[in-house]
Amino acid sequence: MVFDFYYFSIIFELLSGMEHLGAVRLHEFQRFYELDSGMRKFPTNAREAVATISSEDIRKINQKMAIVIPIKDEKLKLLEGVLSGVPHDCQVIVVSGSQRSPVDRFVMEVQMLKQFNHFVEDEILLIHQQDPGLAEAFKSVGLDSILSEDGSVRKGKAEAMYIGILLAKMLGKEYVGFVDADNYVPGAVHEYVEIYAAGFLLAESPYSMVRVSWVYKPRVVEDKLFFAKWGRVSEVTNSNLNRLVESYTGFGTEVIKTGNSGEHAMSMQLAELLCYASGFAVEPYEVINIIEQAGGINPAPHQIVTSGVDIFQIESRNPHLHEEKGDEHVKQMLLSSLSAIYHSPICPNNIKDSIIETCKSQGLEMEKELVKIKHPLEINFNNFIEALKQKSQTLTELK
Amino acid sequence: MVFDFYYFSIIFELLSGMEHLGAVRLHEFQRFYELDSGMRKFPTNAREAVATISSEDIRKINQKMAIVIPIKDEKLKLLEGVLSGVPHDCQVIVVSGSQRSPVDRFVMEVQMLKQFNHFVEDEILLIHQQDPGLAEAFKSVGLDSILSEDGSVRKGKAEAMYIGILLAKMLGKEYVGFVDADNYVPGAVHEYVEIYAAGFLLAESPYSMVRVSWVYKPRVVEDKLFFAKWGRVSEVTNSNLNRLVESYTGFGTEVIKTGNSGEHAMSMQLAELLCYASGFAVEPYEVINIIEQAGGINPAPHQIVTSGVDIFQIESRNPHLHEEKGDEHVKQMLLSSLSAIYHSPICPNNIKDSIIETCKSQGLEMEKELVKIKHPLEINFNNFIEALKQKSQTLTELK
Repeated sequence: MVFDFYYFSIIFELLSGMEHLGAVRLHEFQRFYELDSGMRKFPTNAREAVATISSEDIRKINQKMAIVIPIKDEKLKLLEGVLSGVPHDCQVIVVSGSQRSPVDRFVMEVQMLKQFNHFVEDEILLIHQQDPGLAEAFKSVGLDSILSEDGSVRKGKAEAMYIGILLAKMLGKEYVGFVDADNYVPGAVHEYVEIYAAGFLLAESPYSMVRVSWVYKPRVVEDKLFFAKWGRVSEVTNSNLNRLVESYTGFGTEVIKTGNSGEHAMSMQLAELLCYASGFAVEPYEVINIIEQAGGINPAPHQIVTSGVDIFQIESRNPHLHEEKGDEHVKQMLLSSLSAIYHSPICPNNIKDSIIETCKSQGLEMEKELVKIKHPLEINFNNFIEALKQKSQTLTELK
Repeated sequence: MVFDFYYFSIIFELLSGMEHLGAVRLHEFQRFYELDSGMRKFPTNAREAVATISSEDIRKINQKMAIVIPIKDEKLKLLEGVLSGVPHDCQVIVVSGSQRSPVDRFVMEVQMLKQFNHFVEDEILLIHQQDPGLAEAFKSVGLDSILSEDGSVRKGKAEAMYIGILLAKMLGKEYVGFVDADNYVPGAVHEYVEIYAAGFLLAESPYSMVRVSWVYKPRVVEDKLFFAKWGRVSEVTNSNLNRLVESYTGFGTEVIKTGNSGEHAMSMQLAELLCYASGFAVEPYEVINIIEQAGGINPAPHQIVTSGVDIFQIESRNPHLHEEKGDEHVKQMLLSSLSAIYHSPICPNNIKDSIIETCKSQGLEMEKELVKIKHPLEINFNNFIEALKQKSQTLTELK
């Protein structure tokens, strides 16, 4: 008996083109058409233009994917909403940098997660970033590049992501995705994760990355919501990244639209090959580091050159509505992003000059160096996990 | 071979209780826990507290459901976003009351829908509310209660909904749901439709209604988003509806939380039994009309008394973010809602007095009467459809 089974989950635009830079395939922006294409058979005339992806396939990827949620004093209600949007099939990893005193927000997070999970039974792993046992585990394998001067793990999002990647690897996950804890729209979180899975299904290389762009990023302008197309920092970051790509391909391009995309995911094979820039430079630096390693500018490891790296950029249907962090945060993000580009050995002088100009006009002073965490493959993973399990005081597993 | 198939789509709270009023079962508020519960088997300890609903079951309902989108000069980008959120399995019915001159926005809507549908191939039916052929078709079956004095179909949302119900019936749909065209969050639209389907799967009666409540309805307060729990009108409407229920049950209650819920759906069997109040009174009046017909206060048709009516109220995970319509709109909505309660023959005098007080304090004057459209079962349906197909100038089918 043939079981004629059509579970099309989403429809989206097929790649209209891409930029090649050595072994890096920067795919042009793709759009989602429909969030749920149902179970009707799909006799489309537009087969070449759109891809329909079955929810069965998406769910198979989800089972191999961990979603890392870095949290730092965000409201518990927001975290709960985000969790409700993450597909149940995904492993959730919460890395908390929240305060422990005078109010212990980490304990509040654990309690909320337990309560939420009483009914939902997600697989959730959580840890506190400043867990002394975690720092000891890093020390034991010589990963000093993630530690601050006082010997604890550095604060910051990149460090939380790094911890998330290692925990995902510990759980044997093949994909790792990131979702911010301050998202007001659970449906958007759900869409991001579907986008990650859809991207991995389209990828030809085992080294793949999916970056989400938002259709709109609403800001409050006076007493109204203004649906801005791009975040303020993104415009500058994307422009500089595109100039960088141009300087090697020799052709003008606008291909990069997701330089600051916090919502992104990687295959574990790619994630463990990358270095990570500290703080807010982490997202643009991922793109730069991929180009540094596989862009044909420097010699690359054999396998990544053969397979190439797929970088997908997919636009979400949902607007990105998150906590406003204020102007200071925006300025720091801009500086970190520019710093990631400026300090790359592949950044040409004319782009460096232009970045310095931009900094001046914004009253910012370029950072002296880019702090980086070395790539996960460099550490003795089994020793790290053993030390972590022995010494951690906050590693908590909910089921 | 047993095909062991687990496609759990959503998890949500089971009913914790309900109010009975004659044959009407007003179910207490239920919450969604997770938008996508994946395909993992679900060995929950909490079976009695939560329901997991398979996406297969949801999709079966979707195939029998039409989603009516009333639109009136809303931005095309918003309509496109809403469409992208409606599951592909659902029939879409767009009823447009948009302007035809000096700019013909209806033609723009048709063009946008055609373009969108080139890739997506939804089943979309659309019609303009002021189509002269539509008015003639109503006249031909004596449905004068939907016409204005000049003989055209009255403007307003209730009238658009009514047209949508008839078109859904024409297409043989068993369920009809409503979604506003001004929603900024496609993921919320998708969740609403999943909530409708989940409610119908829980219903025991063929006469059933599902009303969505929003977890938050963000408003811009000064330069920030404030995530208000209830809309301004909803508080007053719900309170008065609850007083009405109390006056018959003799027990205080807060059971009604969705008096003004524009996001709602009905089984066709219920939809064709109801009268519809004109304009913004339509949503609260549905509840009142159900109580009038089946609440045990007036004699009811035999079948509805035997089966009862299920009214579900389910809270969405996504916030409700829509176009701000301004204070005038809010005032009109409040007045219409109060008018729907005030003019009901089952409204006791003390509630009438209190409504008059509320109106005074808001500077509103109670409307003289409640304009109603008689229930769809009263018209000769086949004659109406025949006349519509012959005379309509705007009925358009996209596939």
